[in-house]
Amino acid sequence: MNPLVGIIMGSDSDLKIMESAAEILKQFNIPFELSIVSAHRTPKRMVEYASSAYKRGLKVIIAGAGGAAHLPGMVASLDTLPVIGVPIKSSNSIDGWDSILSILQMPNGVPVATVALNAAKNAGILAAEILAISDESLTKKLVAFKNNMKEEIEKKNGKLEK
Amino acid sequence: MNPLVGIIMGSDSDLKIMESAAEILKQFNIPFELSIVSAHRTPKRMVEYASSAYKRGLKVIIAGAGGAAHLPGMVASLDTLPVIGVPIKSSNSIDGWDSILSILQMPNGVPVATVALNAAKNAGILAAEILAISDESLTKKLVAFKNNMKEEIEKKNGKLEK
Amino acid sequence: MNPLVGIIMGSDSDLKIMESAAEILKQFNIPFELSIVSAHRTPKRMVEYASSAYKRGLKVIIAGAGGAAHLPGMVASLDTLPVIGVPIKSSNSIDGWDSILSILQMPNGVPVATVALNAAKNAGILAAEILAISDESLTKKLVAFKNNMKEEIEKKNGKLEK
Amino acid sequence: MNPLVGIIMGSDSDLKIMESAAEILKQFNIPFELSIVSAHRTPKRMVEYASSAYKRGLKVIIAGAGGAAHLPGMVASLDTLPVIGVPIKSSNSIDGWDSILSILQMPNGVPVATVALNAAKNAGILAAEILAISDESLTKKLVAFKNNMKEEIEKKNGKLEK
Amino acid sequence: MNPLVGIIMGSDSDLKIMESAAEILKQFNIPFELSIVSAHRTPKRMVEYASSAYKRGLKVIIAGAGGAAHLPGMVASLDTLPVIGVPIKSSNSIDGWDSILSILQMPNGVPVATVALNAAKNAGILAAEILAISDESLTKKLVAFKNNMKEEIEKKNGKLEK
Amino acid sequence: MNPLVGIIMGSDSDLKIMESAAEILKQFNIPFELSIVSAHRTPKRMVEYASSAYKRGLKVIIAGAGGAAHLPGMVASLDTLPVIGVPIKSSNSIDGWDSILSILQMPNGVPVATVALNAAKNAGILAAEILAISDESLTKKLVAFKNNMKEEIEKKNGKLEK
Amino acid sequence: MNPLVGIIMGSDSDLKIMESAAEILKQFNIPFELSIVSAHRTPKRMVEYASSAYKRGLKVIIAGAGGAAHLPGMVASLDTLPVIGVPIKSSNSIDGWDSILSILQMPNGVPVATVALNAAKNAGILAAEILAISDESLTKKLVAFKNNMKEEIEKKNGKLEK
Amino acid sequence: MNPLVGIIMGSDSDLKIMESAAEILKQFNIPFELSIVSAHRTPKRMVEYASSAYKRGLKVIIAGAGGAAHLPGMVASLDTLPVIGVPIKSSNSIDGWDSILSILQMPNGVPVATVALNAAKNAGILAAEILAISDESLTKKLVAFKNNMKEEIEKKNGKLEK
Repeated sequence: MNPLVGIIMGSDSDLKIMESAAEILKQFNIPFELSIVSAHRTPKRMVEYASSAYKRGLKVIIAGAGGAAHLPGMVASLDTLPVIGVPIKSSNSIDGWDSILSILQMPNGVPVATVALNAAKNAGILAAEILAISDESLTKKLVAFKNNMKEEIEKKNGKLEK
Repeated sequence: MNPLVGIIMGSDSDLKIMESAAEILKQFNIPFELSIVSAHRTPKRMVEYASSAYKRGLKVIIAGAGGAAHLPGMVASLDTLPVIGVPIKSSNSIDGWDSILSILQMPNGVPVATVALNAAKNAGILAAEILAISDESLTKKLVAFKNNMKEEIEKKNGKLEK
Repeated sequence: MNPLVGIIMGSDSDLKIMESAAEILKQFNIPFELSIVSAHRTPKRMVEYASSAYKRGLKVIIAGAGGAAHLPGMVASLDTLPVIGVPIKSSNSIDGWDSILSILQMPNGVPVATVALNAAKNAGILAAEILAISDESLTKKLVAFKNNMKEEIEKKNGKLEK
Repeated sequence: MNPLVGIIMGSDSDLKIMESAAEILKQFNIPFELSIVSAHRTPKRMVEYASSAYKRGLKVIIAGAGGAAHLPGMVASLDTLPVIGVPIKSSNSIDGWDSILSILQMPNGVPVATVALNAAKNAGILAAEILAISDESLTKKLVAFKNNMKEEIEKKNGKLEK
Repeated sequence: MNPLVGIIMGSDSDLKIMESAAEILKQFNIPFELSIVSAHRTPKRMVEYASSAYKRGLKVIIAGAGGAAHLPGMVASLDTLPVIGVPIKSSNSIDGWDSILSILQMPNGVPVATVALNAAKNAGILAAEILAISDESLTKKLVAFKNNMKEEIEKKNGKLEK
Repeated sequence: MNPLVGIIMGSDSDLKIMESAAEILKQFNIPFELSIVSAHRTPKRMVEYASSAYKRGLKVIIAGAGGAAHLPGMVASLDTLPVIGVPIKSSNSIDGWDSILSILQMPNGVPVATVALNAAKNAGILAAEILAISDESLTKKLVAFKNNMKEEIEKKNGKLEK
Repeated sequence: MNPLVGIIMGSDSDLKIMESAAEILKQFNIPFELSIVSAHRTPKRMVEYASSAYKRGLKVIIAGAGGAAHLPGMVASLDTLPVIGVPIKSSNSIDGWDSILSILQMPNGVPVATVALNAAKNAGILAAEILAISDESLTKKLVAFKNNMKEEIEKKNGKLEK
Repeated sequence: MNPLVGIIMGSDSDLKIMESAAEILKQFNIPFELSIVSAHRTPKRMVEYASSAYKRGLKVIIAGAGGAAHLPGMVASLDTLPVIGVPIKSSNSIDGWDSILSILQMPNGVPVATVALNAAKNAGILAAEILAISDESLTKKLVAFKNNMKEEIEKKNGKLEK
């Protein structure tokens, strides 16, 4: 099945964070692709990736990066797809602030949908919410997912009360 | 026409920021509604608003708030629509940090698509990008919008070189 | 005995912090209840919990949460009881700043009595101080508690001087 | 009528912020006293003030201070009343961070109920919530106050929709 | 004369800061060019600019940008010239932190020579220092420039002592 | 010999940091005393300590504290001796910011000579520098101390060059 | 009379802050000198100034600087006098953080007695406290100064109570 | 061969970070020297080092330091060579902020080319880029270095896709 979501990251060291995005998409049965595309080390590949994303049928891009995290914003500047940015607290990051601010504070005209630090799972859920706009079955899965979260808390509460 | 985007904000003092979201949606010809829904002053109205949003045909919610900005996250917890959060630098805010972190740092399971401080215009563009997934004509408008930005820079460059 | 203090937290992972509140209330012989109520995963349960708290005889609510910590503020918006907020430094928190600012920076009209990062013990003591306003025996226990702290320091000082 | 709430502040320059606490207490008909008590310039007066507060019939102390704001914490260490701390963004403050952290981050054993930066109004409301524990008429006033906030938002919403 | 330094900036609103770089280069008689190249609004122009810079004879690039400031880092990734980054405190910037961290915290392999917030003048001086490595006459000018700074302070000191 | 320097700290857990102050004073042969004096747990003892310090012959006070660190400032408000404040990064501190700002940002009229985070050794050296003003032999020891630091670096340099 | 205190600053733009140090020294009748000594623009003059300070009879140095504020620390490294550092919030400073951290966070062996942001007045008082160690008449003046502060607050309190 | 780059650091504990600069220079076959020069412990040696650097044939200086990191800025003030500053996150540093701001925020007239926290490797690459301005063979090595980075990512991508 053609991938609808492209998950990209600046370095293979980001994979341990970004695979949570892949896992949740699998859980929602959304086809995706996963690659390393570095804004700084493979800038031309990044331009090609972003420029061809729409034509290749991608609907949403999830981009994770740490430090001076330029990947999500650059990809957003190169296409018209919604881009979800995942700030990653890499080694030598300044507590994640660098990566959060580099992704979040985009100028007028080029938004990046930023999620919490290291929150690749939430990036995956947000992608599902976006795709659900034109896919009712996905909305049902999201409703079930939310019910499940609720029930887990209720179970834990049951244990706690004992 | 039925609104596709709901723009909400915690206080009428946020309107001067949030109206940029409305303007850009108008520019893209996307029907929207605009209301004040305060997580802290009208919590039950907020629950109703969010719980009925899907049924009322909304596809995306844009929520702006300042300080301990709970509106975007609470609305995200109450429905399955993509919620775009706009951190607002209100008076007595601590340089906007409070509102950014209150909106961005959502727990696993409940994402908010956060944009830059005061960036309501980008929230509107992001909503357009999301809706464009199932509306090709909107993609074309976004392409035109990006071309227009490019041309404006080129014009300014022309002036500068003189 | 009917609980006077409700201790709630957003996740069972917060329990290791929040149980210090329970311990100090036990020490002061104040009846309390303990539950997991997540603003984001069980928002409707949270509304019910807060809306019924006064009727159920609760006098003070202690709410702990990490990250984009909306629980204390939302509970404060839903009742008129004093709400004590405990910012928790959860994993992926940005050094606790997110949780502090999300709890502290409440808008005019809806205060949260915020204590230090992870300071659930102090939340319990503050609850005791609040209840002591109409319970002189509790004031005596608080005086004894303070004397005890003083004496411990004096003992440590004795050792140090040797 | 004997004051139930003591409002103190470190300097007369804090008065323009702290008078919001006085106003809201007046609105709730709660008797209060207002004085300047500086931890650093009148430390002995501060010790006397705090040590005699309980005997003089005070039930709650609201203490506002800026910069290295020691007043709320020192007063909390000298009595067993609930102390509400108001961080004030004074001139030469570092964006209010100094005053927030000096008030909030109290050690175990000595809590200060901290409210938002400059939020003296919320300090007054919190004092009312605390006193309402043993005064049902005050609870009714708080319910009315909250309803009023809700209605104001609804009115503004009505205007906005036009 | 062929420009040796390329001064670029993300927006014409950055010009009031960046013209200090131009002024100091003029003062040192170093030929330069000045253009608006936006990483986010003209990404392909940026790729062309950076890719052709070496061939066109540029020796140093000075790039200024605010907010999520990707221009300096992206240009550095696209050529092998030394790139000097000027963080600019634009409107809606978070006190300049976003722009500093987006420029400074580049990953291993792609350095940006970052100067202080808004310090376009220092960027120009640094460019002169770099060019002086193979141009002794420039070193002499830099020595004179430093002497001049010293003498100005001595003059001011003379006045002060009176 | 009568102590000239009083080293105090808010808790015995601060001892592992503060003993470096004691060690350096020993090294300079300056008589000192060491005690636990908590601003928050033994406020009255603190008042007595500070009020009697001058009469007891102390010349300098070194006060270390973490979190909402009120000890140095309160002691400074209670006497006219120079007070050196050592911010300590205690557990649950917010990276030391709380303790630095609580000690440093004293209001006009009541200075605290603040040293770096955890820098009790430097507090001891500063005390020696202060006492050296009227004790030439101490100046000589300080000169020797500085020479020693220089020589150690030269030795390390020697090793490095091999 | 021979100056006992040297007040230095990095730039004449710092004078409007640093003159408060001069004023308070005048008030205490302490002879002082005032000069501009820039660590970065007159580094050799700075070395001479600091190296000769002790011989010229200076007892204390007060050094104010903004941004990357190296003057206090460098002067401290070049002599054995107590050096009081005044962080100045200059234009283009990042809210004063740069100057605070550059002055405060000195390495082991070379302390700087740092006072609050812009707190040149407190630097002057601290210098007086240091000189008072061997000058009882100065201690008396400091006691009077503190009494005066106390009385001013009492007067303001009197007004407030009316 | 005469060293072209001088690598200096404030303390031997910085060596584990700074040796990455040396390694990359070796890889590019650029002759360098390595020494410990402390702004605070060997200030006069620092003055000599910087004052003689140009005459000794150095073209670029790389200076690493932690905490109140004055070495890069002081060296920049003492010569006209380009100085690359490496902020180091030393123990007791405040998350690296102190060292970043002390190096970056230099006043007008005296730039330091600052690289990311702990990024000594990037300092080495930047030195190579600077030297490449008048050494075409070095430019070729830099192009090869960048190609190599690109290929490594492509290899990792190949693995990932399997």
